[in-house]
Amino acid sequence: MPITNSFFSTNMRIKFPVLALLLEVVIIVLFAIFVRYEERDFRTDLYPHFQDVHVMIFVGFGFLMTFLKKYGFTSVGINLLIAALGLQWGILLQGFWHMASNEIRIGIANMINADFSTAVVLISFGAVLGRTSPVQMLIMAIFEITIFACNEHLVVEVLKATDVGASMTIHAFGAYFGLAVARVLYRPGLSKGHENEGSVYHSDLFAMIGTLFLWLFWPSFNSAIAEKGEPQQRAIINTYLSLAASTLTAFAFSVLMEPRGKLDMVHIQNATLAGGVAVGSCADLNILPLGAMIIGSIAGIVSVAGFKYLTPRLASVLKIQDTCGVHNLHGLPGILGGIASIIAAAAQVNKQISAGLQAAALGCSIGIALVGGALTGLLINLPFLGQPPDQNCYDDSVYWEVPTEEVPHTTHHLYQEVQRKLSVEELKE
Amino acid sequence: MPITNSFFSTNMRIKFPVLALLLEVVIIVLFAIFVRYEERDFRTDLYPHFQDVHVMIFVGFGFLMTFLKKYGFTSVGINLLIAALGLQWGILLQGFWHMASNEIRIGIANMINADFSTAVVLISFGAVLGRTSPVQMLIMAIFEITIFACNEHLVVEVLKATDVGASMTIHAFGAYFGLAVARVLYRPGLSKGHENEGSVYHSDLFAMIGTLFLWLFWPSFNSAIAEKGEPQQRAIINTYLSLAASTLTAFAFSVLMEPRGKLDMVHIQNATLAGGVAVGSCADLNILPLGAMIIGSIAGIVSVAGFKYLTPRLASVLKIQDTCGVHNLHGLPGILGGIASIIAAAAQVNKQISAGLQAAALGCSIGIALVGGALTGLLINLPFLGQPPDQNCYDDSVYWEVPTEEVPHTTHHLYQEVQRKLSVEELKE
Amino acid sequence: MPITNSFFSTNMRIKFPVLALLLEVVIIVLFAIFVRYEERDFRTDLYPHFQDVHVMIFVGFGFLMTFLKKYGFTSVGINLLIAALGLQWGILLQGFWHMASNEIRIGIANMINADFSTAVVLISFGAVLGRTSPVQMLIMAIFEITIFACNEHLVVEVLKATDVGASMTIHAFGAYFGLAVARVLYRPGLSKGHENEGSVYHSDLFAMIGTLFLWLFWPSFNSAIAEKGEPQQRAIINTYLSLAASTLTAFAFSVLMEPRGKLDMVHIQNATLAGGVAVGSCADLNILPLGAMIIGSIAGIVSVAGFKYLTPRLASVLKIQDTCGVHNLHGLPGILGGIASIIAAAAQVNKQISAGLQAAALGCSIGIALVGGALTGLLINLPFLGQPPDQNCYDDSVYWEVPTEEVPHTTHHLYQEVQRKLSVEELKE
Repeated sequence: MPITNSFFSTNMRIKFPVLALLLEVVIIVLFAIFVRYEERDFRTDLYPHFQDVHVMIFVGFGFLMTFLKKYGFTSVGINLLIAALGLQWGILLQGFWHMASNEIRIGIANMINADFSTAVVLISFGAVLGRTSPVQMLIMAIFEITIFACNEHLVVEVLKATDVGASMTIHAFGAYFGLAVARVLYRPGLSKGHENEGSVYHSDLFAMIGTLFLWLFWPSFNSAIAEKGEPQQRAIINTYLSLAASTLTAFAFSVLMEPRGKLDMVHIQNATLAGGVAVGSCADLNILPLGAMIIGSIAGIVSVAGFKYLTPRLASVLKIQDTCGVHNLHGLPGILGGIASIIAAAAQVNKQISAGLQAAALGCSIGIALVGGALTGLLINLPFLGQPPDQNCYDDSVYWEVPTEEVPHTTHHLYQEVQRKLSVEELKE
Repeated sequence: MPITNSFFSTNMRIKFPVLALLLEVVIIVLFAIFVRYEERDFRTDLYPHFQDVHVMIFVGFGFLMTFLKKYGFTSVGINLLIAALGLQWGILLQGFWHMASNEIRIGIANMINADFSTAVVLISFGAVLGRTSPVQMLIMAIFEITIFACNEHLVVEVLKATDVGASMTIHAFGAYFGLAVARVLYRPGLSKGHENEGSVYHSDLFAMIGTLFLWLFWPSFNSAIAEKGEPQQRAIINTYLSLAASTLTAFAFSVLMEPRGKLDMVHIQNATLAGGVAVGSCADLNILPLGAMIIGSIAGIVSVAGFKYLTPRLASVLKIQDTCGVHNLHGLPGILGGIASIIAAAAQVNKQISAGLQAAALGCSIGIALVGGALTGLLINLPFLGQPPDQNCYDDSVYWEVPTEEVPHTTHHLYQEVQRKLSVEELKE
Repeated sequence: MPITNSFFSTNMRIKFPVLALLLEVVIIVLFAIFVRYEERDFRTDLYPHFQDVHVMIFVGFGFLMTFLKKYGFTSVGINLLIAALGLQWGILLQGFWHMASNEIRIGIANMINADFSTAVVLISFGAVLGRTSPVQMLIMAIFEITIFACNEHLVVEVLKATDVGASMTIHAFGAYFGLAVARVLYRPGLSKGHENEGSVYHSDLFAMIGTLFLWLFWPSFNSAIAEKGEPQQRAIINTYLSLAASTLTAFAFSVLMEPRGKLDMVHIQNATLAGGVAVGSCADLNILPLGAMIIGSIAGIVSVAGFKYLTPRLASVLKIQDTCGVHNLHGLPGILGGIASIIAAAAQVNKQISAGLQAAALGCSIGIALVGGALTGLLINLPFLGQPPDQNCYDDSVYWEVPTEEVPHTTHHLYQEVQRKLSVEELKE
């Protein structure tokens, strides 16, 4: 890749720092005007929950995406950047909906919600991973969190729908937002795949760090904003059981759907988590342990099937390239979560929940995500935002200084031997 | 390896999904009949403890076993599978001993105990790692947890022995169960070792992720089910100190027992943890900080010595191949923990504890483990359960789609040059 | 490297175990005399905070240093050794300042402080990483923690300065102590750099594990010993925001200061954490969210600039080789933290804090660190402590059994082909 400083190049020397610093200054000014410490409701009891969610956002999402052989720096590094920006922006945008005397009072609960808001962007990031620049991702973060905060307000405050683990407002929203962006950024040049779009042995192990920390702390994610007492305890137990069940079915269907009868790391890294997504909307409801396990079992199957049959067709038919398969981990299980909450409402597990409003919440989350994602996609598709050319996709070295791997000793030795041999023979000739 | 679908092949296309799904269905049915939410004793104060134990089971055990160069997918993946199955089965089997009006009431405490029950299987998994199929491991999990729950009931409820950190009921039990299975599955073909049975540089670093998270959260493991207040605080402090002491002696003896005076990663990954195992049985007792450190110091030494002198002899003399050296990390330190509790009882640190009953608990844990392991070994030795042939042991590619490592650029270039050269010369000849 | 057993060699067969075991015995004797369990003030509410700090010390610091291509075993392994020794010694040395009736009462709070005291040594370890032996590090740990405990007593009890997150007493102290040691151990032979002093792709990813766990749990570090209620909540929020802001500015300046306009992993791994260090001294004060973000923003910039411009000059002009750049992560941001606390005192955010005493605390922390480090450097520079020769620096294999990487299949195949070819031709000749 030629390094040029032209306006349309991938070189970030000027545009990236200017944008990042500008955003930070704007945020600090807004914090100066609006944000003060919470002084009454400390909720320090939530601090362990917060820390679990915090690990999911930065280690979980970050490492989950390191499966690509040459894209680990971006996965874990730009994940950190997006989340660090997003949590500041999230505190403001979520806070604007709950201001008292023009002040946003920030405590542990706000930090949990701010971390949640970054999850939405990180899910969308997974859809377009490898084909976008950090500059594009900063812009996407700002717009997506803004739209997310509006949809969340609509779902929770206006529709009064239940979505304690955010199957609809975070997972389905983030997935369909990201897929809409991916549709706009479609690259025909990558329709046959790309040599960098795959894993190596150790990159798959790094990704499992992400998978496991997501898997482990998902009960905290789904219970963090649940009502104390029985509802919070149910959210923990239901998520724990749903994940366990989805792990069993994901393993089973990974083997079943593979003609050679082997496990596929993509499924294990992702579909084992589908149970956590799908149980989200009704995690705190009295769906019985049994109910959680059925939801989880179905989610694991749906997710593996999505990877196997849907992702290739999304790319070929709908022209939606989905690098991490977020549709299978967040989109489908998110819809499943919404449906489960509709059924739970219809079955009257809780009389305050309405099946119609749950359906409305699911519909508007997906609808707003698709429209918002398409518009955001159009914006970040502007040619001067540093998108990598097709041949440099899925390659950290466009945006990062990457260490040159040294030739191993044996190979080096061999190389010299061949060189010697070749020169000898060229002499002979 | 030829891929065939014959009844006796390693191909898992049918047998693995059928077994996994069948187990999940049976479990869901049993949950439907028996399991309800705990509605009285929430113990949400235990949730941080639970999460620490949870990390130990999935990240700790999972990554600890990734030290093998070509077996990381199985280590961390099948670890997840076993634990996800085991925790569901554990809730049922442990619950059956404590039913009230035919119901199992599940809360945070049950989740901790369910995670504990998976630890037993994961320890045994370490003994036979690389020489067994996922189908065999699912069956082993079911039987081992069943037998474990009975032994635990016997030790805790019948003998009323003290074993708060489960040196005897989990560590010694899991180790000797696994070794008995390994004895039955003995492979003479591997008596000279196997080229895959070793680490590479980065696989040893992945394993250290496991070591550290086990090391860090062991105080939570040993104190999770301790009585609130002083006993729980003692369990935390004693484990913290015992681990620190065993780390010092493990490092010292690793160097001392190595003629070249160098540290051995196997010892650092494992023997530094021996202090956590050995202090388990009497972690909550008033053994003084001093007592904990003496137990830990001895455990570190015994564990390194076990790796150095005992493991090779177990293999050659007793025909017990122990891949991860679980005998040195869980077996010997588990016995040491039992002995420490006998001494503590004899020294009357707590008048409710009887030296005789502690000895009985240690004896029956090991005895039941050996018999149960041998019987389970006979069962999973049935020829149609997909065991890998000797030459494919310690190799993920038998059961996993494994990415083909690309030839590095220099080597590839070299390869082409040699190919060109060879063809030129063949033309000349 | 020839393996010899001479008194001055790097072989650790005798000197390392003797020293480690001697220290452990001395510590156990001192524990026997002085240390008992805390029986009144349990502070089990601090246990989650403790566990977060615990993860930072062992996983955070340990993996952060694995960025070197051939030094991961030492980074994560000797980090564990130093911390395991240090926490035992720290309990004693910190305890001696707070004895009642000649007894040290140990509870969760002491464990947090003991972990803190190990951080000091681990920071200094980062400065001399790759150029020292484990024997030297054990000795440094003993002396540094002793001097640290005295300085901490002076700052906190005598000067009554505020330093809740220990910007001055831990970060600045650890950095300048380490730099003084590095000055004494200066190696002119490495002034042109060393071929092993760099990263490979996956070693940089391992280091990000360390970065992220430090980043995530820094709010726990800065709030662990804060007063319950508002101060503790402020310490959490301020650190969360300061880190987020420093991440944005670190990313921006990493790109801005790099002529090719690319991100540098060294900055991302380190400078993103500078906000956590710099906000430490006044984390619990009412500096407003705004104040925390300004401190963090400046810290990110200062830290990147330090890596870019200061570290090379420290090495060439002041003859201080700083392997991990601890001056930029802990030194400069530590001073910044001290200055921030002076400003906060001058601005009267809390009437009990005096600007003059804060300045005195900063001055004495740096002064005592420099003198203590220089003296300790002279001591561990004694020629029989196993320092590696220049050519073996930054290489695990001096002190560890390191697995030989196998030649990949393709290369091996190629090698054989070339061998065959060569023999054929030699026959022809």
